[in-house]
Amino acid sequence: MKVIKSISEMKQWSDTQRAKGLQIGFVPTMGFLHEGHLSLMRIAREKCDAVVVSIFVNPTQFAPGEDFNRYPRDFKRDEALCKKEGISVIFYPSHEDMYPESHRTFVITDQLSQLLCGKSRPTHFKGVTTIVCKLFNIVKPHVAVFGQKDAQQAIILKRMVDDLNMDVEMIIAPIVREADGLAMSSRNKYLSETERREATVLYRSLQLAQDTFEQNKNKSFIQNQIRKMIEENSSGRIDYIEIVDGETLAEPAKQSKTILIALAVYFDQTRLIDNVLLKNDC
Amino acid sequence: MKVIKSISEMKQWSDTQRAKGLQIGFVPTMGFLHEGHLSLMRIAREKCDAVVVSIFVNPTQFAPGEDFNRYPRDFKRDEALCKKEGISVIFYPSHEDMYPESHRTFVITDQLSQLLCGKSRPTHFKGVTTIVCKLFNIVKPHVAVFGQKDAQQAIILKRMVDDLNMDVEMIIAPIVREADGLAMSSRNKYLSETERREATVLYRSLQLAQDTFEQNKNKSFIQNQIRKMIEENSSGRIDYIEIVDGETLAEPAKQSKTILIALAVYFDQTRLIDNVLLKNDC
Repeated sequence: MKVIKSISEMKQWSDTQRAKGLQIGFVPTMGFLHEGHLSLMRIAREKCDAVVVSIFVNPTQFAPGEDFNRYPRDFKRDEALCKKEGISVIFYPSHEDMYPESHRTFVITDQLSQLLCGKSRPTHFKGVTTIVCKLFNIVKPHVAVFGQKDAQQAIILKRMVDDLNMDVEMIIAPIVREADGLAMSSRNKYLSETERREATVLYRSLQLAQDTFEQNKNKSFIQNQIRKMIEENSSGRIDYIEIVDGETLAEPAKQSKTILIALAVYFDQTRLIDNVLLKNDC
Repeated sequence: MKVIKSISEMKQWSDTQRAKGLQIGFVPTMGFLHEGHLSLMRIAREKCDAVVVSIFVNPTQFAPGEDFNRYPRDFKRDEALCKKEGISVIFYPSHEDMYPESHRTFVITDQLSQLLCGKSRPTHFKGVTTIVCKLFNIVKPHVAVFGQKDAQQAIILKRMVDDLNMDVEMIIAPIVREADGLAMSSRNKYLSETERREATVLYRSLQLAQDTFEQNKNKSFIQNQIRKMIEENSSGRIDYIEIVDGETLAEPAKQSKTILIALAVYFDQTRLIDNVLLKNDC
């Protein structure tokens, strides 16, 4: 396994693979890898001849005051995990190379980026689309794998790939959960013991919502049910509980193919997200 | 010469060229071709094995009330001109394919896009960067040729290519002028006979500025000189006269490699631009 830090070296490696007719799979990450990331790598490994994992804590997707500085980092551990998964290259660029002082260009996705998580993090998705666009141009993957855990991110990035006519096949992989149901996240590390225990209520409330949805599609009824369950069983402060079309994030409609029930809840300073994506058979 | 309307067919054509190891040159245009465009094609032809010209009047770079609807179009004439220049493919997509209703993604270049032309056309460059990003992903050129006539566009697009880590060599070709000095532009067609005659003052004022600059680098002195000459010799309404760093559009400084003197002037509804790029030897 190679660790490549230079942008031009990374491009060269990918050009060489492509010239040989080999398929490149790509898993962009911010490091501090967990089973969720490893599941994405395994999917990429299955589909492609070689897999690149990028590790880059992307400053442009954090707002001032968010957790950019304390975001957990452990490159040595990440490196060992990638090696074990049969990754070909870790792309590990510097902030200075990715965002030199002259940098002025951003990729934005109107409307979609202002809903759900975008309400409390209005510049977050601008940072995400920008870095993923850059990484795609550097790593030149045939296939990229993202997690359904970041449901809105997946929707926005698929939109970007279509809108900008990029030749990247986007695979969205299922959420990987801890034994007690908590969605895996690098941010779970921030939780106190009590918070960690309480945080299981997120998935339980989504499971309840999923059961309810089969009989009763009333949006505010389901939202209230989730809210009540979280408030009665934890110290979590609800950021949002949303029920939307799973492709457009718009109001669910008869023609919606899928319905996304998504939530974000703060435990003290730690903001956790989770979701379920349901077939809409009405 | 092929005329390709479908995005997927265009991509396929480019993939085939690339697989054969051939270099693709690209000249994006809005059609109604003139000698300026042809000069770009000749440069691309010289550098590359095959040249693609796109013809697409891009709606997102026109604001409501601008001349999108009346922008001159003559595909048959354009086709004949491209054929004569040895162009391999005209890419001629539909608006519906380029901007389906679901389209939400834009490429923006902060700061640079709000100066000079961006002051009176605040959304113009957002449309330009977005369409060029899309076209680059579809046509997959090794080399793209743009005109120095659109000096700010050239600076912004080079910034975009660097910032988004695109593998496209950007060539900026000199302005092609009519015998009397007027910079070639599809919009010259809008001018009345009197306006057409008066419009030569733009280049004459830039030439005077260039001569003055050799002795006297005082910015407002040169600006006033240009303003006076245009106002005394034409009915033109000055939009801006700017003297800026030729790479960053910032205030000229000692370390500026080049100085851009650029102007935009309205003749009735028709907005003309012109510029000279000078070496800074102070």
